Amino acid sequence: MKAIVLEGQQPRLSTTHPDPRPAPGEALIRPLRMGVCSTDLELCKGYMGFKGVLGHEFVGVVEEVGGGGKEAKAFVGKRVVGTINCVCGKCDMCRSGLREHCRDRTVLGILNRDGCFAERFTLPTKNLLLVPEGLDDDHAVFTEPLAAAYQILRQLTIEGRPYITVLGDGRLGLLCAQVMSQLNATVRCVGKHPEKLSLCEKWGVKHRLLEEVGLRADQDIVVDCTGSSNGFATAMKMVRPRGKIVLKTTVAPGAGEIDLSPLVINEIQVIGSRCGPFGDALTAMVNKKVDVLSLISRRMKLADGVAALKTAKSPGVIKVLLEP
Amino acid sequence: MKAIVLEGQQPRLSTTHPDPRPAPGEALIRPLRMGVCSTDLELCKGYMGFKGVLGHEFVGVVEEVGGGGKEAKAFVGKRVVGTINCVCGKCDMCRSGLREHCRDRTVLGILNRDGCFAERFTLPTKNLLLVPEGLDDDHAVFTEPLAAAYQILRQLTIEGRPYITVLGDGRLGLLCAQVMSQLNATVRCVGKHPEKLSLCEKWGVKHRLLEEVGLRADQDIVVDCTGSSNGFATAMKMVRPRGKIVLKTTVAPGAGEIDLSPLVINEIQVIGSRCGPFGDALTAMVNKKVDVLSLISRRMKLADGVAALKTAKSPGVIKVLLEP
Repeated sequence: MKAIVLEGQQPRLSTTHPDPRPAPGEALIRPLRMGVCSTDLELCKGYMGFKGVLGHEFVGVVEEVGGGGKEAKAFVGKRVVGTINCVCGKCDMCRSGLREHCRDRTVLGILNRDGCFAERFTLPTKNLLLVPEGLDDDHAVFTEPLAAAYQILRQLTIEGRPYITVLGDGRLGLLCAQVMSQLNATVRCVGKHPEKLSLCEKWGVKHRLLEEVGLRADQDIVVDCTGSSNGFATAMKMVRPRGKIVLKTTVAPGAGEIDLSPLVINEIQVIGSRCGPFGDALTAMVNKKVDVLSLISRRMKLADGVAALKTAKSPGVIKVLLEP
Repeated sequence: MKAIVLEGQQPRLSTTHPDPRPAPGEALIRPLRMGVCSTDLELCKGYMGFKGVLGHEFVGVVEEVGGGGKEAKAFVGKRVVGTINCVCGKCDMCRSGLREHCRDRTVLGILNRDGCFAERFTLPTKNLLLVPEGLDDDHAVFTEPLAAAYQILRQLTIEGRPYITVLGDGRLGLLCAQVMSQLNATVRCVGKHPEKLSLCEKWGVKHRLLEEVGLRADQDIVVDCTGSSNGFATAMKMVRPRGKIVLKTTVAPGAGEIDLSPLVINEIQVIGSRCGPFGDALTAMVNKKVDVLSLISRRMKLADGVAALKTAKSPGVIKVLLEP
């Protein structure tokens, strides 16, 4: 079958990738839409040292399940999204309620598990959620990144109408800006790209160009969605003493030196934030609380996946979707 | 007068440093004991770009106050310790209760204010606390660093008997280990120096050599007191997913690259921690909750202050005290 495979630091189209078979407890999924994420681009630079089929954002149809009872079989023929951490259920993390941090996990297209940029892929049925009727594929494919944005709301306590800056106007930044705007807070999105920031207009979200913003250490909370190694240094200059930085950015090693002493001097709190609640994301889209369609810049074919990864890095491009 | 002055990156003894005069609201203080801190050593490497008289740990006698009412005059002839942040009282930080983070602050021997490694120095009277009767100079000189250790208790919420590692067996690490041991927690001090760690024996604090400890991401809280740029990377490997790192270490720039992606992947929280409550520190010493005397490695004269800074870096040396 066709698949976009990463080996070394070079993604390539394979047309002879072996067809996957669902193990017991797994579903075989045929993706309908796939999303290109900044993490995919970092993986291509060596992040996580990943080898295999790329991709972790998808909406797809379950074609088959490997064994399993009635519940598992009920997924067959249905449209699903799926959480990306595949967990053991036995380790100390799983037992203590932190399944996403399972010691033995594999992660779809990121860690020891082939991803979704393929004609078919597998995922445990317990990772699947049915896509609500009426939520189309173009929305559903955003469930994973939107959930990552909603994760922030689970990690922060909001008190006294804080000033929040979402730093970064890319794929994740524009989702986070919309999600943070649902809080009792004064939220602005700060980025480098006027054409991307202008999307904030239609959502009623304040926005500013980074070059026009004073780095005055006056924000209560800064969410780093820059996807750039410089983002954290900028965030440290923007946040007030005793303020909080939510760190969403992961970059491949070799990004350069970071001076952490401002964290100590200003007693800043940093909160690392990764995967989030799919249910919150689906509910938000069903209830039209978040606009994801405006983020779609380009639709490309799976067979053009390598070009799609390049396109996702191009100026002005926000989300690139792949179709079979 | 004699003073240890930093210019460029070279500390030197000046015997002709101008005698300071207390401005209105300030006290002129004659130090009885001064402590050498790792921050002094980092300043000598270029941290903060500081120029002037070094030193911020002291116990001393107030000789004179500049103007001021009855309250200020009551300090004259008394033994005092003093908080090191000299604040404006007017900026947004001061008005919001975060005086230690004053936008216009000077900091004793660290930022735009001559320090205490001198025959005399000045500090605002509102920064002073009387040393309780019965608390001798050798104890009182530890108030500032011990307060920095107690600051951690104000920043953490302790629930469910967590596993805590204090990383670092130096001056600050050994104070933090004692303070953290007062919590409902399983505390261990991890360091590289058997002779320093052995002090933990008499305090009933668990201790381990770093090389003998598995970096298993199983600690709920790690307090980085290493004073080394590698400390943070080690802390990220020790702390469990969703755990907390308290960052006490500040190092001069040029320490090398730090990969922050583990913070995101493991959703770690980092809490920067600086100056702390002097009252808590004095109370702890009066009530013999903390042993500071065992940390004193060497006593030297102010005139030998440059040598004292070198001694403080020597193997096996914990606290170096200066006397007039």
